[in-house]
Amino acid sequence: LLSTRILTAVIAMPLFLGILYYGGIALWLLVSLLGSIGFWEFGRMWRAKGVEIDLAVGISACLALFAWAHFIPPGHRFSAPVLGTLVTLTILLTLVRQVARFRDRSVTDALIGLAGIFYVGWLLSHILLIRALESGLWWLAVAFFCTWAADTGAYFAGRAFGRRKLAPQVSPGKTWEGFAGGSLLAVITGALLAPYGTGIGPVWGAGLGLLISLVSVAGDLAESSLKRHCGVKDSGAILPGHGGVLDRFDSSLFVLPVVYYIAYWLYM
Amino acid sequence: LLSTRILTAVIAMPLFLGILYYGGIALWLLVSLLGSIGFWEFGRMWRAKGVEIDLAVGISACLALFAWAHFIPPGHRFSAPVLGTLVTLTILLTLVRQVARFRDRSVTDALIGLAGIFYVGWLLSHILLIRALESGLWWLAVAFFCTWAADTGAYFAGRAFGRRKLAPQVSPGKTWEGFAGGSLLAVITGALLAPYGTGIGPVWGAGLGLLISLVSVAGDLAESSLKRHCGVKDSGAILPGHGGVLDRFDSSLFVLPVVYYIAYWLYM
Repeated sequence: LLSTRILTAVIAMPLFLGILYYGGIALWLLVSLLGSIGFWEFGRMWRAKGVEIDLAVGISACLALFAWAHFIPPGHRFSAPVLGTLVTLTILLTLVRQVARFRDRSVTDALIGLAGIFYVGWLLSHILLIRALESGLWWLAVAFFCTWAADTGAYFAGRAFGRRKLAPQVSPGKTWEGFAGGSLLAVITGALLAPYGTGIGPVWGAGLGLLISLVSVAGDLAESSLKRHCGVKDSGAILPGHGGVLDRFDSSLFVLPVVYYIAYWLYM
Repeated sequence: LLSTRILTAVIAMPLFLGILYYGGIALWLLVSLLGSIGFWEFGRMWRAKGVEIDLAVGISACLALFAWAHFIPPGHRFSAPVLGTLVTLTILLTLVRQVARFRDRSVTDALIGLAGIFYVGWLLSHILLIRALESGLWWLAVAFFCTWAADTGAYFAGRAFGRRKLAPQVSPGKTWEGFAGGSLLAVITGALLAPYGTGIGPVWGAGLGLLISLVSVAGDLAESSLKRHCGVKDSGAILPGHGGVLDRFDSSLFVLPVVYYIAYWLYM
């Protein structure tokens, strides 16, 4: 399994980084693809628990959010009204469809689906929002490399020193020692990487690395608790050895927006 | 009961219309109050079904949305980024709190709470967004008077001619004949009222009245299905004879955003 995991990473990683670098339509299409698969996985997980998610409305709404983020990002005159129109249409469509097919548990299903649009579509759209910023590529690099550093550091530090459980009910494999090791590696990565292109110095870069480590663990635990709640092991199987899109991007879903708003409010 | 209902309306209606007319801080405070009670009612309904809604995050998020709508409405340079920051913080806080108090059904509870913020807070914030528009007071008048006309017309036409059930599973009292009567009264109200201040003529006003009648029934049915799903009769008892805030504003929650985006995109 570990070798499949490494092999997939060796193929997928350069592709992913290349498209991040290239940006533009290619990145928009990639995010649209990942988001659609991610929302489909969200629906599949809940189906295991007997909850029917409305995939038609959900995936359409995610795609609309990605189109908004790419073509009408903040700064554009119509950004807020278009976003508002999209969000409102999503809410009304979800509820109208729910009324039309009213069954005993359809209201719960509809509201979980609505929340899933924000969890998958809204959070993931921040890849595109960051990329559209000046020096956005560097902020994306900091976000992804610090997240991967935190993940990798936690894996090895946890294996070597792991003792005290971090969140035994949600994710039994995680330890405080692993978290400390991951944070250390993320801090180093942030301190080294941030000064190159983001305009913040090594000390602030280290702080950002620490914040990313914290937020990435929160994102990981949020997705783990979702899986545990639904009684599934992986969100999907799109990437051999890595599970599904939501498994691979669980931390990023939390890290990307946090990095985006820090970058935005620093350099507005 | 009918006389209590009329008495409450005679007292509350002029107060409500006076604050709509006055606008400003008074309206912002009123919407903040109604929204907080509305979200509390949302939580109370779900509690009847064993779902624990996070009231601290939910009411804070609603209040933040109302503050955004009043102080940083679309057109303001920071409208989209502030809205994005609020929505993101709401999602992350909801999920982090959910992980912190993980229990078997906490994920479902958290996602329903998140959806409730959009249902109550986001939709209701459009009172403030409409009021901030040029001739917004007139658009609000059209929205509320057509909604009340549709409601009143449906009541009397339903009593007089009601035969065929509209949505027996969700709201057994509603009939197609009532809907037709309500639509007729809303069309007349729209045709008479819209030309005074909105800048659209009587024919378009009639069309808007028809649309409002349709959307208001959808909003009513959405809230009815929510109550039926949770097994409660009224959302609350804040207004004697009228039930709770969500009972009173169920149609408006759908009508206000639709009227806002029509007005906005017509006169941007």
